[in-house]
This record gives sequence, C-alpha cells and structure tokens, in this order.
Amino acid sequence: MNEVPHLDFDIEAHGISRGHLIVPKGADCDPLALPIFSLNQGEGPRLLVTGGNHGNELEGPILARRLIKWLPEAQTCGRVIVLPVLNPLAVQAWSRNTPLDGLNLNRVFPGRADGSVTERIADAVSRVLLPMADTVFDLHSFGPTWYFPPAAVTHPIANPDLMARTVRMAEAFRLPVTLVWQHDDTAGMFDVTAQNQGKVFVCTEFGGGTVGADNLAIYEAGLRNALMALGLVEGKAEYPTFRHRSFGQTLETHPSDELKSPASGIFEPRCSVMDEVKEGDLIGILHPMDSLSSEDIDIRAPGTSTVLAISSGVHVDANTAVAFVARPLKVRQ
Amino acid sequence: MNEVPHLDFDIEAHGISRGHLIVPKGADCDPLALPIFSLNQGEGPRLLVTGGNHGNELEGPILARRLIKWLPEAQTCGRVIVLPVLNPLAVQAWSRNTPLDGLNLNRVFPGRADGSVTERIADAVSRVLLPMADTVFDLHSFGPTWYFPPAAVTHPIANPDLMARTVRMAEAFRLPVTLVWQHDDTAGMFDVTAQNQGKVFVCTEFGGGTVGADNLAIYEAGLRNALMALGLVEGKAEYPTFRHRSFGQTLETHPSDELKSPASGIFEPRCSVMDEVKEGDLIGILHPMDSLSSEDIDIRAPGTSTVLAISSGVHVDANTAVAFVARPLKVRQ
Repeated sequence: MNEVPHLDFDIEAHGISRGHLIVPKGADCDPLALPIFSLNQGEGPRLLVTGGNHGNELEGPILARRLIKWLPEAQTCGRVIVLPVLNPLAVQAWSRNTPLDGLNLNRVFPGRADGSVTERIADAVSRVLLPMADTVFDLHSFGPTWYFPPAAVTHPIANPDLMARTVRMAEAFRLPVTLVWQHDDTAGMFDVTAQNQGKVFVCTEFGGGTVGADNLAIYEAGLRNALMALGLVEGKAEYPTFRHRSFGQTLETHPSDELKSPASGIFEPRCSVMDEVKEGDLIGILHPMDSLSSEDIDIRAPGTSTVLAISSGVHVDANTAVAFVARPLKVRQ
Repeated sequence: MNEVPHLDFDIEAHGISRGHLIVPKGADCDPLALPIFSLNQGEGPRLLVTGGNHGNELEGPILARRLIKWLPEAQTCGRVIVLPVLNPLAVQAWSRNTPLDGLNLNRVFPGRADGSVTERIADAVSRVLLPMADTVFDLHSFGPTWYFPPAAVTHPIANPDLMARTVRMAEAFRLPVTLVWQHDDTAGMFDVTAQNQGKVFVCTEFGGGTVGADNLAIYEAGLRNALMALGLVEGKAEYPTFRHRSFGQTLETHPSDELKSPASGIFEPRCSVMDEVKEGDLIGILHPMDSLSSEDIDIRAPGTSTVLAISSGVHVDANTAVAFVARPLKVRQ
C-alpha cells in the first residue's frame, strides 16, 4: 500500500515547529519533502501562507522566508503555517509548470493521490494543510515576461458572504491594487478548492518581471498589513508607494479587458502599469518580423480604463494576451 | 554548389532601401531572409546597427525598429544599415541560444559557411555586412533574469588606438554606465571579429529584466546621442535619467568582481544596481531549499564598489554568478 501524505513533525506543539509535508512517491519520482514552518500561539486566526506555486515566480518563496524571520517576535496569537515552496521541481527549473509531467499545479487542485507528481502535491496540500487553516494567502507574481502592479486578487465567488469577506481581506493588504478577476480558466485552481472548504483565499500577484529589492519591500509591507488585519501581529498598516505614488484602488477585470496580439511578431510596450488610458490611446505596437516594409500594428485602449498588466517586449504568436486593462469595481456584495 | 550569403537588394542605391540578408540553407534548415533597412546619404560615417543577437533580449530589435522610423527625417550624411534581428530562430523561441543547434550566436563568430544555422548567420554577417561599416552597435540587454543599468560596453582591446576610440564611442551614448568588461569568455564574440577588421564596436547592454516603456525611452536617447556623436544626425546630446538620477560613469569590472552563489538555492537580491557599497555590505541572501532550519547565507560586497548587475530572485545552482560589482576605470589609453 502506498504511503499517504503527512507531516513529519508535531504541528500541534506550542511555539515554533519545523519539518516537512511529505508527498508520497509515485511511478514518476521518489517522495518529496516540502519544508514547512509553523508558529502556534494558541487561540486565534489560523493562516496558511504558500509560495512557489509557479516555479518562475520567486517573490512568494522569498517573502515567505522573510516572514519566517520576523514572525517569532511579532505573532501574538493564532497559528501561522508557512510553506515557502509548493512546487520545488518547477522552482528549480525556473518553470511555470512541473517539468516532469508538464502540469500547472494551479490547475490540478484538489489533486489526485494516485496521479503524477504535480497532482500528488495538490492532493497533499488539500488534504493535510488546508483543513488546518481558515485563511490562505498564496503568493504569486505574474511571471517573468509581464509588468504587473503589486496586487491582492480574487475571482468572483458564488457565495456572497465569502466573496465579501475575501474582498475585505484582499483590501487589507493595502497594495496598489485589489483586483476581482473574472476569467474562465479557474477549474483546478488552489483558490477554488480552498473556497469550496469555506476558506478566505487571497492570491497575491506580486509584480511580475524581475524580482528586485525595491519591489520586495512593497510586497513585504503588504503581507505585514494583512497579518495586522487578521489580528495576528500588531502595528499600523500603511499603503506602500509604487512608481513614486500611493495607490489603493479596488478594480475589476473581465475577459473582454484582455488585449491580444493581432498577428505574430515582437510586442513593444508603449505604456506602463497603472497608467490611466482612454479609448484609442496607444497601449503597444506589434512589429511583424518577416519584413521591414510591412506596417507595424498599433494596439489601442478599448475605452477609459487603468492599465493593469502589460507584456514585456517579447516575441508573441497571434492572438496572445499582451495587456490587461481594468476598471473600478462596480458590484460589491 | 551551395548558395553564398548575399543581399537580395541594391544597398548602394541612394536614399532608403529595404530587403534581406540571405543566409544560405544547410543540412538543418532552409535559407533565412533577415530583414534589413539601409539609408544611404552619401559620404560620411558608415554604421551598422544590429539587434536580436540573443533571442531573449528584445530591447535591441525594438530600438532598431524605432530607429528606422525617425532616421529618414534625421540622417544628414553617411550610411546606416539596420538589421533588427540577427537570430530570428532564437527570438521566436525567447531563447538566448538557437534552439535548432543549441549554439550561442555571440560565441561562433566569424562563423562557418558550411556550419549549422547559427554559424551560417555569423558567416553571412561577417562576410557581407561587416565590410560595409566602420562602426558597429550591437544592441543587447543582459537577459531576463538580471537587473543591469543601461550601459555601453567594450572589452579590453590589444590595439591601444582602437581601444581609445571604442571607449570614446561608448561614452558618447551618455548612458548611466560606460563599461570596460574584462572577462575570459570572449572567443567567438561578434566584437572580436569586428575589431579584427579594425571596426569600432560598441555592445550596449540595455537593462536586463523586463522590457518596458520607461526604460526603452532611456535606450532610445542613448542611441540618438551616439548617432549625434558620429555626425550622422544633428541635435544636443543629454544624459537620460535612471532611477531618478543622472549618472554618467565609466567603470571597469574584472573576473574577480563577479560574486557567485555559495550553494544552490533561491537568491534574494538585497540591493539595487548603481548602489554604492563598501566591504561587508549585504548584496543578497542565498536560501537553501532543503530545509527551513538551515541557515541562510549572506553574500557581501568584497570592497568599495558600485553594484553593476544583480540577479533577479531565482533558483541558482552552486557557483553561479548572482552579482557583478565595478569600479571607476583606472587605465585609460
């Protein structure tokens, strides 16, 4: 009989404990031991913080490491479990998906005990860790070929009470953007599995692009603000500055707010995230690569909006997302 | 008999001409047709501008495209040849090396007529285009996992006259950094082949990280400054601001200025490019991934210097470069 996913330490002990979440072996690889930190200060909120869901988004694992450094002196109650790297195979490869089975961990939740390694990771997290938390912060960024503002994100949730609590929790990060993202590709997301168990789940998108010291300070401030809002630590929350301004907007974006490349070629960004644009403003230029005679193609804003995300200058295929715009959140439960 | 590399248009015609550099077919693929723009305004400097040498550094191709837009109204004399994408196979794959043969174009110059596709590209450029220019600007950046300041770069050149002229040309970009980079991995570089033909060759390193609208404006200003210095266009050169300051430093960096990861793990950058550091200052932290008990490893500055380049937060193997420092150029021919 196969091993079942489990912790190799006593997480119920008071104070700090460290150990691993054991993901059982399968046909494709040996067991994985994912390092975990837990700080148990008795009654109070129960929080799970995860990073490294996608292997080329390292802001999360770094912030989780920083959190482990200062939490012992700051946490006054409750329990915080920190799992800095959900998918070590993807992190080592600097790859969004797991190289071994090609799967996106954030599309296979709740996972399968008898599946491939990515599915077994999801299964272990869903069965062992999720029941121990009421609130989950999954620390993402937007991948290395995008600019994205520091944002706390949720998707629309059918349960209006859970939706309202989730948006409030996201806003408590006090990041430049709180975002309600409506898209059609939510099947298998960690979010959905957690929400189905009644958890408040916030996905942070910490910036995209290169992971640098300046931005890490913003993300750390956001995470600290959220822990204050939960009552786990004390202090005064503040809006961190971004692009030399203080933002604090709650926005929504829909499938129709995604701007796509009209052809294959090199995308040149012509605006920056958080720029305010109106209909017809230049967002970027698509340069076909086959000839210098062929006309470049302007990509323009469909209407009054905020530039939420813009692709790096990269080669794109036709019909690939190159920008997302957003507007102030209208419907609030 | 094999086709030889050639141009499919009359580049000697006065005014604007457009066409392709034909890279002959080989055993591995059909002929390539690399789009070229040329503007011939008679007597004067002869400049070749190239981009897309490495396929995940798209600043160059985008800047080359911008140059083609404004050059016809600005160029008063001489000839400028622009080849925005040297290696379309690598650009389409967003890959430093050519996927088809695994080769780094910037390490196979002067190339081979009977070699694999990367070697045939180098051969075509060396034999057809290089003889038409006295000055070459090859527009690189530092790759997507690094922060690097906008810089005009050369390597030490044995010929002191050519070295002096090259450094002066690099400084004429008026970018935040002019850099003399001493390293041991120069065999097969485009630089060396051009210098062996007596050309002034400047390699720009336009930033690294994500290609965004803010930085593209800095690079474009630098390129325009250099064209002014050559006498190809008119105008007043200015130092573009970077990180909200105006820099203009000529630095040198040696193999001993490369800081390496002491173990495998996640690198956390703790400083930013152009920061001034002294011995013992914290540059970054290496987080081993196997356990949360193992100590993080501080990576510290070896002496008084400027942070020239710093890796993004990524997973690195042991003994991998994570930062470069630099000092003011001492020896000037």
